[in-house]
Amino acid sequence: MDQQRWQKVMEWPLVAAALIFLAAYAWEVIADLSGPAAVPAELIQALTWALFLVDYGMNLYLAKPRGRWFRSHLFDLAVVVLPMMRPLRALRFVTLLRVLDRTAGVAIRGRIALYVTSAASLLVFVAALAVLDAERPAAGSTIKTLGDALWWAVVTVTTVGYGDEVPITPQGRIIAAALMVCGIALLGIVTATFAAWIIEKIAVQDAEQQAVTVAHIKSLESKIETLQEMISTLQR
Amino acid sequence: MDQQRWQKVMEWPLVAAALIFLAAYAWEVIADLSGPAAVPAELIQALTWALFLVDYGMNLYLAKPRGRWFRSHLFDLAVVVLPMMRPLRALRFVTLLRVLDRTAGVAIRGRIALYVTSAASLLVFVAALAVLDAERPAAGSTIKTLGDALWWAVVTVTTVGYGDEVPITPQGRIIAAALMVCGIALLGIVTATFAAWIIEKIAVQDAEQQAVTVAHIKSLESKIETLQEMISTLQR
Amino acid sequence: MDQQRWQKVMEWPLVAAALIFLAAYAWEVIADLSGPAAVPAELIQALTWALFLVDYGMNLYLAKPRGRWFRSHLFDLAVVVLPMMRPLRALRFVTLLRVLDRTAGVAIRGRIALYVTSAASLLVFVAALAVLDAERPAAGSTIKTLGDALWWAVVTVTTVGYGDEVPITPQGRIIAAALMVCGIALLGIVTATFAAWIIEKIAVQDAEQQAVTVAHIKSLESKIETLQEMISTLQR
Amino acid sequence: MDQQRWQKVMEWPLVAAALIFLAAYAWEVIADLSGPAAVPAELIQALTWALFLVDYGMNLYLAKPRGRWFRSHLFDLAVVVLPMMRPLRALRFVTLLRVLDRTAGVAIRGRIALYVTSAASLLVFVAALAVLDAERPAAGSTIKTLGDALWWAVVTVTTVGYGDEVPITPQGRIIAAALMVCGIALLGIVTATFAAWIIEKIAVQDAEQQAVTVAHIKSLESKIETLQEMISTLQR
Repeated sequence: MDQQRWQKVMEWPLVAAALIFLAAYAWEVIADLSGPAAVPAELIQALTWALFLVDYGMNLYLAKPRGRWFRSHLFDLAVVVLPMMRPLRALRFVTLLRVLDRTAGVAIRGRIALYVTSAASLLVFVAALAVLDAERPAAGSTIKTLGDALWWAVVTVTTVGYGDEVPITPQGRIIAAALMVCGIALLGIVTATFAAWIIEKIAVQDAEQQAVTVAHIKSLESKIETLQEMISTLQR
Repeated sequence: MDQQRWQKVMEWPLVAAALIFLAAYAWEVIADLSGPAAVPAELIQALTWALFLVDYGMNLYLAKPRGRWFRSHLFDLAVVVLPMMRPLRALRFVTLLRVLDRTAGVAIRGRIALYVTSAASLLVFVAALAVLDAERPAAGSTIKTLGDALWWAVVTVTTVGYGDEVPITPQGRIIAAALMVCGIALLGIVTATFAAWIIEKIAVQDAEQQAVTVAHIKSLESKIETLQEMISTLQR
Repeated sequence: MDQQRWQKVMEWPLVAAALIFLAAYAWEVIADLSGPAAVPAELIQALTWALFLVDYGMNLYLAKPRGRWFRSHLFDLAVVVLPMMRPLRALRFVTLLRVLDRTAGVAIRGRIALYVTSAASLLVFVAALAVLDAERPAAGSTIKTLGDALWWAVVTVTTVGYGDEVPITPQGRIIAAALMVCGIALLGIVTATFAAWIIEKIAVQDAEQQAVTVAHIKSLESKIETLQEMISTLQR
Repeated sequence: MDQQRWQKVMEWPLVAAALIFLAAYAWEVIADLSGPAAVPAELIQALTWALFLVDYGMNLYLAKPRGRWFRSHLFDLAVVVLPMMRPLRALRFVTLLRVLDRTAGVAIRGRIALYVTSAASLLVFVAALAVLDAERPAAGSTIKTLGDALWWAVVTVTTVGYGDEVPITPQGRIIAAALMVCGIALLGIVTATFAAWIIEKIAVQDAEQQAVTVAHIKSLESKIETLQEMISTLQR
């Protein structure tokens, strides 16, 4: 079995695992489970995490130049290893980003808008969960419900930043910083998509002023070929 | 009667209906009408809404592959159906966006600036009305006058976000989130328009370095055709 | 005397008048002059304003299709007429923007960066003056010194918006809204300049993949012309 | 010895000096050293500064048209001279930017992302140090620890601007203003990189609609050259 086949087989199970992971994580955070009540949710998260660990191990085993694959997939390693460190549990959500990343290859042309919208929605939801998890137990925090956390995440990712809800724990602030960086990238992608669209529209506006395409050059080529044939008949 | 003719006939009545709807909605919100005093304004809103309902029905009836039109116009359905749900009355403003959308096809080249300015102004005005409607009755809210609401809307749509006026009701926060997303899109369009303009200006700067246009290729083609004629006379 | 000659003659006197206007306005606002003490500063502002009025009148008189010039220069009319209305005195600063606008035609290529930097600095300075003028006398305002006003203007134009200093008067908020809109445009221009630069750099990276320029087409044309001459000698 | 050789020899020593400078500055600020305890850190900073002074002097001495080099390197002069003025000590960090600037020439194509990420991280770290240095002794300031300062720097550079931590000293506000301007430039570069990438991707999407490259024109040229040879044989 080669690596490409393994990745094809595992694609949908990994998407399913990521969704189940997110559901279990959301359940644990929203219901504010702790102690024995949190065991089922924790167990589901551990099982889906195990699937990602197996996938990483198989990929590493099957990769042809193994060292090169390892060096170019350090992010995947972080995704698999970091959730074990208790204080960084919020970073688990990057597991989902890897799945999104897999479908990114398809999303180049018109689907960028759809992809950005769903990625942004997922990002806002996961960041809200992670910040709620970090901030709820902290004294003096203003983020106490899922509604507050979602409101905070939208205000942050759009870079509006009212300041009515602000994370105060180190963990919450790291999540917030990651969300802000994503907000900037989001702004960049939205703008870039509009820019590409407008530049394209302006290019089409006047046929005579339009950029020359390969199709135009091909018509020139066929005319020159006709010339060559005509001269050939002359030579005969 | 076919769909295209219907849409041409209904274009201006729908624009008028949207403007009357907005005026009645603004009147109701700004004057803080309730009970019997709100009846005339509510009635006008109901009548203009009925016109949009009829337009949607006729479009659905006249559409040739009806299923396809239905699937690609779910947004229009939402515009027509949602205002009936009382708590989402603020969403009525999307009615206006549909009208703007109709003129969007024309606005590709130089008119983008004008279109963005009027869309942004309308958006700020409608968002201010909707938030004022949602926030004024809430205890602890700081948005109590149209001036406050307009100031809040400008601070939000530009992503400045001072935080001196912040919606606190769930309804107000949903409107705010929608306004922020529009703010990002607005930023994106403004930037993209400038980018297209600068790229175009730079391209024009040196005639020798200019991109080849179809006009250039046509002059080449005519020269090759002259060659073909010259060789034809040789062959005779 | 035709309009073009008039504009050439008046170019530098108008720049000087705008600078003198700004200096007098800054002096009046920073020193918080009022009553008889403000007379010299007010007088200088009135005199420079008179020069702009004369320039507008002469332009209107000399313009060939007078109606068309009037319609396409409504902004110039507003600049000249509005400062007479007392409550809108802060709008006087647009006088300066007109002067900047005159040099804009030159600033297309590499000078965009310099132009944006100086326009942004001027904008921040004038907005700070205007807001200080509007906010200082208001009870409850936090903007009391030029330092506060400059800090507020930078925080606003970059869309950061901490909210530690916020205008509370209607006049101050109108100035703030104008500054925010300029902030968005500024962001757009900065981004667009970078985008044009990066796209250009990427285009140059591989000579074979470079866009075809008119220079390339000219080399093709000369080759085809050689062909025509060769065939001409055949025909003789 | 010519200037180019000098710059090649000094490249890595200057990078090392900048890093040592940053480490000594960070040590002094984070440990809140003052009086005799600050002497070692101050000494290291003075020594690394001396290296930059020597480098500037040698460059000025070796530059061929000396006046022109002086005029186009005023920024380098400011970097070397300004740190001597005590109240502007925070500006020392621009020393590092010069080093980054040296590697900028290489970073045009795919490395822009890496370059932006490292420049942004360095910028946030240095701005946090400088603001902490300025704000910690001020009464009423909320920025008292490195954690607070880093959080403030991230919130500012992304233009989110919650307003929970705001500099109140003139020195802190100047640093903040510089960071905001960098934040806007950062946003611009991120967006522009995405825009260039999307425009490139869209261009590749349909081979027939692709822009004509020099490679295409070369194939046309070779065909025309074949024609010329064929006609040459006819003439013989």
